[in-house]
Order: sequence, then C-alpha cells, then structure tokens
Amino acid sequence: MKSPHAIVQPWLLSHPVPSASINKLPVMVNACTGKMGKAVIETAEINGLYVVPVSFSSEGRCGGDTYLTYPLSGKEFLVFGPSSNRKKILKTIFHHFPDLIVVDFTVPSAVNANAELYSKVRVPFVMGTNGGNRDMLFTNARDSDVYALISPQMNKKIAAFCGAVIMVAEKFPESFSGYSLSAVESRPAIDVGVSETTKCLIPSFKKLMGVDFDVDKVKSVRDPKSQREAIGVPEKHLSAHACRSFTLLSPDLTAKFQFQHFVYGTSEYAEGAAAAVHYLHSKVYLRDAKKVYTFFDALLRH
Amino acid sequence: MKSPHAIVQPWLLSHPVPSASINKLPVMVNACTGKMGKAVIETAEINGLYVVPVSFSSEGRCGGDTYLTYPLSGKEFLVFGPSSNRKKILKTIFHHFPDLIVVDFTVPSAVNANAELYSKVRVPFVMGTNGGNRDMLFTNARDSDVYALISPQMNKKIAAFCGAVIMVAEKFPESFSGYSLSAVESRPAIDVGVSETTKCLIPSFKKLMGVDFDVDKVKSVRDPKSQREAIGVPEKHLSAHACRSFTLLSPDLTAKFQFQHFVYGTSEYAEGAAAAVHYLHSKVYLRDAKKVYTFFDALLRH
Repeated sequence: MKSPHAIVQPWLLSHPVPSASINKLPVMVNACTGKMGKAVIETAEINGLYVVPVSFSSEGRCGGDTYLTYPLSGKEFLVFGPSSNRKKILKTIFHHFPDLIVVDFTVPSAVNANAELYSKVRVPFVMGTNGGNRDMLFTNARDSDVYALISPQMNKKIAAFCGAVIMVAEKFPESFSGYSLSAVESRPAIDVGVSETTKCLIPSFKKLMGVDFDVDKVKSVRDPKSQREAIGVPEKHLSAHACRSFTLLSPDLTAKFQFQHFVYGTSEYAEGAAAAVHYLHSKVYLRDAKKVYTFFDALLRH
Repeated sequence: MKSPHAIVQPWLLSHPVPSASINKLPVMVNACTGKMGKAVIETAEINGLYVVPVSFSSEGRCGGDTYLTYPLSGKEFLVFGPSSNRKKILKTIFHHFPDLIVVDFTVPSAVNANAELYSKVRVPFVMGTNGGNRDMLFTNARDSDVYALISPQMNKKIAAFCGAVIMVAEKFPESFSGYSLSAVESRPAIDVGVSETTKCLIPSFKKLMGVDFDVDKVKSVRDPKSQREAIGVPEKHLSAHACRSFTLLSPDLTAKFQFQHFVYGTSEYAEGAAAAVHYLHSKVYLRDAKKVYTFFDALLRH
C-alpha cells in the first residue's frame, strides 16, 4: 500500500488552489462528512477561507478502506478514516499549506486524540467539537505550545447570551437569593447528555441564587416528539437546533425571570467557526504570547 | 395658624422613638399615602430602619388642609400637603434626626421640586420616583453637593436583569446585527408612557443590533383587559406589576432570543429601597467624595 505522503502529495498537486482562492486562508475541515463540517465548508469561501480538499472522518464512513473520495460543495475531498496514518497526512498538508488552520467538528469521543494529533504536528486548530475531557484538552494544548481556539459554542449570539448570564452572576452574585431555577434544553437526539453550553451556565445561575443546583436537574429534551410538541421545534430542524430556557422563580411565585433562545440550523455556527479561524490566524501571524483561546476571546476583539 | 416648627416639633417629642427602634436608621418616607410609600414603611423595621411619623403627600390627599394625621403600619403619621412650608418642616425633622435619610416615592410631576427641597436642606435622599426631568435631577443633585441615590428601579432582580443587558451590549456590540427587536412592557394603568427602566434598556438593544430602534416602537400595555388576557397578569396585581419582554429575531426567522420578567407586588422594591437607604447612609457616614449614586452602585457593593 502507498504511504500517506504518496497519496496526499499528488492529490494536493493535482488540485491546485483556484486563482480566486489564492489569497484566502487555507483550512482543513474535519469531519467534512458531518453536518457541521459541511456547513463550515459551504460558508468558507464567502468568509475568506480556502478549504483544502482533504479531511479526516471520525464517523467510520470510510469503512475498511483507509481513504475514499467524497464530493462536497463543488469539489472532491480525499477522506481518511481513523485507521490511516493521520500524523503523516497532516504533516504533508501542513507542509503544502504553511498557513493551515484545522477546524474540528467531529465527535466527542475523538476530541482529545484529534487535539493531540494537531498539537504534535504543531498545526493551529479550532476545536468546535463538544465533549471529551475538556480539562485534558486545555491542559494538553497549553503544554504543547500550539495555537488553538477551543469552544463547544461557536454561535456568536448564543455565546453573547452566555456572556450575559456569566457577567450578571459575576457582578451581582446572590441577587436572586431564595429563587429557584428550572432549566430546559432541546438538542438533536444524537447529542446525548446535557450540552457543554448549558453546563457552562449552571455555575453562574448557582452564583445568582446563592444555592446549589445539580446539572442532573436540567431537563434535557432529546425526544423528537417532545421537541416538536412541547418546545415547538419545526420538523425540518429536529436534526439541527439548540433551544435553552432558564427560568428563575421567586419563593412566593410573584416574580419570574426568563432567559431563552431558540436557534435552528447550522449557518450561524459555521459563520462563527470562520470568524474563529480568522481570529486564530491573526494570533499566529502576530506570534501572540497567549496561544490558547476561547470563542469569547474572539468575540471580545470586536 | 401655627408655624410648621410649632406643629412638627411637639409631634416628634410626643412620638419618641420606641426603645426597640433606637439604634435604627431614621427615614422619612414621602408619600406615605402611596402604594410604594406604604410598602417601604411596612418593610422598614425588619430592615433596620425607623420610620419618622411625618410625611409629605404629593397626591393632594390633604385637600384644603395643610396637614392631617394618617394611620399606617401601627403608627400615626402627620402628613403635610403641597401647600405647607415643607422646607421648615424638613429642617425641623432633620434637626431632630441628624442621621435622617428621605425616601421619595411620590409622582413624576413632583420629582424635581422634591429633590430641590431635599438638596436645599442638605438632607440625603433616595429618589425612587419615576419620571420628571432626569438630567436636571442628576445635575442639581451634583451641583448642590448633597448625598443622593437616584434610581427609578429599586428591584434588585430587575436591576440585575438590566445590568445583564447593558453589560452584554457593552462587551459584544453588534453581535446581533441584522436582528430585529420587539419590546413589550406592562405596567399599571396610572403609569403613563414607556417606563424609565424600559427606556434605559433600549440603547443597549440598539448597540447589540447595531441599528436604530425608536422608543415609540415599544408596546406599552396599560389596559387592564390586555394585561390580564395577553400578558397573564393576575387580577389582584393589576395595580402593582412590572412585566417586560424583549425578543431578538434573526432576519431569516431561524433564531430567537428572549429576555423577560414578570414581577408582581411591591415587596421587592421596598426591600431594595431599604437597601438603598443603608447604602447611602454608609456613604454619608464615611464622607465619601462621590455623593450621587444609582441603584447599580448599591448592588455592586456586594
């Protein structure tokens, strides 16, 4: 069997960057076969990115083969499965595109291994994937001295919504003391467990109320029937939506405060990922001393 | 007719501070005959305040008389109407209670004249009343070098809610660019015009969206039938409630962010007013260089 280098190198040479994309920032999107990967690829060009036609698939879509080709957004992608020598492949691509930034929207089980791979090759990466061991993810990125932007939430509006809750808890702790919280979220059925975004808000609500609130108490709706009927998610958005509702209720029930969002589709996440790539690139370009960022950093720049 | 001093002085002497209240901070609540005045008086004792049994009424409840007595919360109040010599009366009370702080929950038309009176006598005051000329109110208070806390919103939770909106707009301006806003508020029928609290949030929403939004576009519900049916305000709270709902909608209608509160009754405002009195007293006691505060200052202390 051919070495990865012997496969990737001629592929890149036979797929030269079209003249219209020459000054665009090169990105490799993993996994291109997934919903978010597709969305990022589809919005990349209008956001000043050039998508390298190679991708790693974490979804076992490559079956027993080590690679296959996959058509998407007007180009053909060379997709490598989990059993290929990804380190060599990534090195080859990075050598070909020295400004490369990897965007990862794979699956929770792949988060830590993928980040480790990017770190070893020293390629800057944007990790948009939820789950995995988050502490390990940040620690490893910092230790390896690679440029990385790590955030399971790349929707600028949802991030700002989270920012509001985090800031108000910071500024006015216990201002809702005595109140009780009810938290409901709805995410696609495949997104098991309480989402990272909701989890990241719980400490702030606890701070606002000055009492404990277990993450287990979050009502995590994952059943399409309830999503349609109780939350009102349109049928066509059952596979891509994020709804969250947080209600603070006074002990005597005479006061209720509610913060909620209903977001359908993937376009705003893809836009956010593209913005994250540009932000991270600016840090690489300036050789910034800080190397690991979150999406909040990118938002606060503006 | 007797001079105000000749009326107030013996009244205060014949109503000595009960031993249980001796170490409490003295407050004069204007107008004691109003809903908020009553609420503040009723919650004062448990909040470490002693309510001086004299009040100014701005509601014309004194009719042609210059004063009357009014029973409230277990004591008898001497209430002076708008035509009495309030400056002399206030001076007498302030002389009797050198730690006095005035709490004003009167009517918008009285705001500026009342604040001017307190400033002239140099008695620290908490202005909880909505309306009036706010610029003039702040400017005059600053110019007269009196200690004052001025805020039309003394509900700690609503203030924190406002804080969240103000901070998120400050940190993430234009993060909702392209979105549209709909704003609905419901306040008691007598509270004409868009409330100060809603008005104070509009610039932040404009900043978040990066576009203009005219205050006239706020749907100000003041009709009890709509309040009951469309907003869901319980019958018994029609005369004392504050509901606000702000909805940000994406241009393609696939994303909606909602911030809302439903607050019934006056107790949390009264608690907030008591907290404001304590806060202002601490500033007077410490002879703080800053003299004019808002409710946010009091909240941020904690």
